[in-house]
Amino acid sequence: MPETHARRRAALRSRLRERDLDALLVVDLRNVRYLTGFTGSNAALLVRADGDADEAGTVLCTDGRYLTQSGQQVPDLERLIDRPCPPALLAGARAGAPPRRTGFESHRVTVDELDTLADAAGGGNELVRAAGLVEQLRMVKDDTEIEALRMACAAADRALADLIEHGGLSAGRTEREVARDLESRMLDHGADGPSFESIVATGTHSAVPHHRPTDAVLHAGDLVKLDFGALVDGYHSDMTRTFVLGNPADWQQELYELVAAAQAAGRAALRVDADVSDVDAAARDVVERAGRGEEFLHGLGHGVGLEIHEAPALAKTGEGRLSAGMAVTVEPGVYLSGRGGVRIEDTLVVRDGDPELLTLTTKQLVVV
Amino acid sequence: MPETHARRRAALRSRLRERDLDALLVVDLRNVRYLTGFTGSNAALLVRADGDADEAGTVLCTDGRYLTQSGQQVPDLERLIDRPCPPALLAGARAGAPPRRTGFESHRVTVDELDTLADAAGGGNELVRAAGLVEQLRMVKDDTEIEALRMACAAADRALADLIEHGGLSAGRTEREVARDLESRMLDHGADGPSFESIVATGTHSAVPHHRPTDAVLHAGDLVKLDFGALVDGYHSDMTRTFVLGNPADWQQELYELVAAAQAAGRAALRVDADVSDVDAAARDVVERAGRGEEFLHGLGHGVGLEIHEAPALAKTGEGRLSAGMAVTVEPGVYLSGRGGVRIEDTLVVRDGDPELLTLTTKQLVVV
Repeated sequence: MPETHARRRAALRSRLRERDLDALLVVDLRNVRYLTGFTGSNAALLVRADGDADEAGTVLCTDGRYLTQSGQQVPDLERLIDRPCPPALLAGARAGAPPRRTGFESHRVTVDELDTLADAAGGGNELVRAAGLVEQLRMVKDDTEIEALRMACAAADRALADLIEHGGLSAGRTEREVARDLESRMLDHGADGPSFESIVATGTHSAVPHHRPTDAVLHAGDLVKLDFGALVDGYHSDMTRTFVLGNPADWQQELYELVAAAQAAGRAALRVDADVSDVDAAARDVVERAGRGEEFLHGLGHGVGLEIHEAPALAKTGEGRLSAGMAVTVEPGVYLSGRGGVRIEDTLVVRDGDPELLTLTTKQLVVV
Repeated sequence: MPETHARRRAALRSRLRERDLDALLVVDLRNVRYLTGFTGSNAALLVRADGDADEAGTVLCTDGRYLTQSGQQVPDLERLIDRPCPPALLAGARAGAPPRRTGFESHRVTVDELDTLADAAGGGNELVRAAGLVEQLRMVKDDTEIEALRMACAAADRALADLIEHGGLSAGRTEREVARDLESRMLDHGADGPSFESIVATGTHSAVPHHRPTDAVLHAGDLVKLDFGALVDGYHSDMTRTFVLGNPADWQQELYELVAAAQAAGRAALRVDADVSDVDAAARDVVERAGRGEEFLHGLGHGVGLEIHEAPALAKTGEGRLSAGMAVTVEPGVYLSGRGGVRIEDTLVVRDGDPELLTLTTKQLVVV
């Protein structure tokens, strides 16, 4: 693992040099983890642009609670034990050959924090906005990351299979009971926890895209939408399946088939070099041709990794093109207010040729 | 409940007028919840200073996912459905009688976001730093809040009692199993979830203040430290108890008694008008007189409410005085590296006279 993180830091350094930055101050904890492997709840990292050989000047900072843990997880970097970390790193860099231009994560650093950073940096070190540099690297996953995503998706697949096999998705249970059961089964299958608050939405609730589980009872004839995922090694899986309790009514069957067709079209459009807005359009066109475009209330999907929502956004207004190794969701949904909704979502990896499907639960309409 | 939120907004308005602000843009979701009752995952609020009578110009913004929910939870305020919310609120305020000085939460708004806000505000509306205004109000809890904290503390107390009664804290189990069991029992007792990642630390792990549960097995003779809490209606409880598996060794007994004495001293110092650093000192003195001051690695406690850690900080470097209605933790700990540690923590409410104890589990040394 240390080699993996060193490789990522080297990739970041070439970005810094392209931007004429001497260093980058990384304050986002997911970015710190990505670049070092450190998983504590308080840290920052100063990456020097010129340290490829010995990483001199590249320093991880955390506080005394993590003295032991940071030494074990990050044996390959200089460490500073202090708090608050971001100004401590900038103050520490004033010794020796101080950086003249240091990038900072202007999408994370608050207006008040910037004052503190500027004081700590001193006069000779200009602080330069450098938002999203690490997030850009994170869009394309390496093998270590894809393996973690694969395990997270497998935990979710297995939990759902268990739930259904044990009659856990049945009339008479509440949404909250189903959510708790599902989350417990993900832990049984190796998840560190749920990757976000599980959505269990039955009957008319299924028409609410982001419904929180309530004490509402599942009834025969309901559409039941489950949107959930597992967290493994910091990586988030994301899957939605919609079921019918008992035999589907015609409108439920039609709605399901429409969303399934849109989802298949979205997956088919996941190609290297595809424009992200075209991927969204591929699925959205199917829904619009059926006259349901107004009821597809959100974007098609999003990147997934150390965050449950990260770049790229597969949306009308999204920008950029897909690359091999990007992990994304494809999740069209059509919501008939007051009646019910269907969403079908997979997590996939963009590959040369067909994308790799990580969430393996069937997308056939399952009647439970 | 709408009256409660209206009362909080009225209290905020008088703060705004004191600072010559025409409005405050609230972007922190906990603050939005505190002021409106809205619990969705995306929102912002513009509070006009002059709206006490009809709240004209005070607007809650969220996105289309929360159209129904926001109407139900916040029937008493004008709503704007748009995204991103903070600039949409500022742009919306340009119509009619626009504010001339609008405060923003400079401890939450990022450097990049401020650019967007300035564009949206336009030329005639100066954006003024106004960090922590709502957090200052939140320090003193009202009855609704204390009732939620009481329920959260009760869920944790009951879960711990159940765990022990069912033999859940016993040699042979892993830290992870105990944590999961405890969290599951909190749900049984009405928690919406754990209020933070539970700490279960056995044997030498108990000497690590913030240990994450592992597959380490509990052994006879271990100190076992449990630090956990429940979340109820958005409010966080926080409690630590340390047990011995079997008969305590002399050093364990002594360590326990020392921490218990320090904790009692800290609780006794929780008085209206007490300086927060004096409360810390009251407990720390006990530990220092025993020659263990270097092994008390953190502050004495913190405020608790809509966040697990909020103002005031009961710490050496803390500033300010206690008021009736503040909810705080008192949690001294002494950690003997490589041997074991003890922490004892309660959640309490500062009252005229003695503080009100919300975490009711015994602080006698319990041998399980």
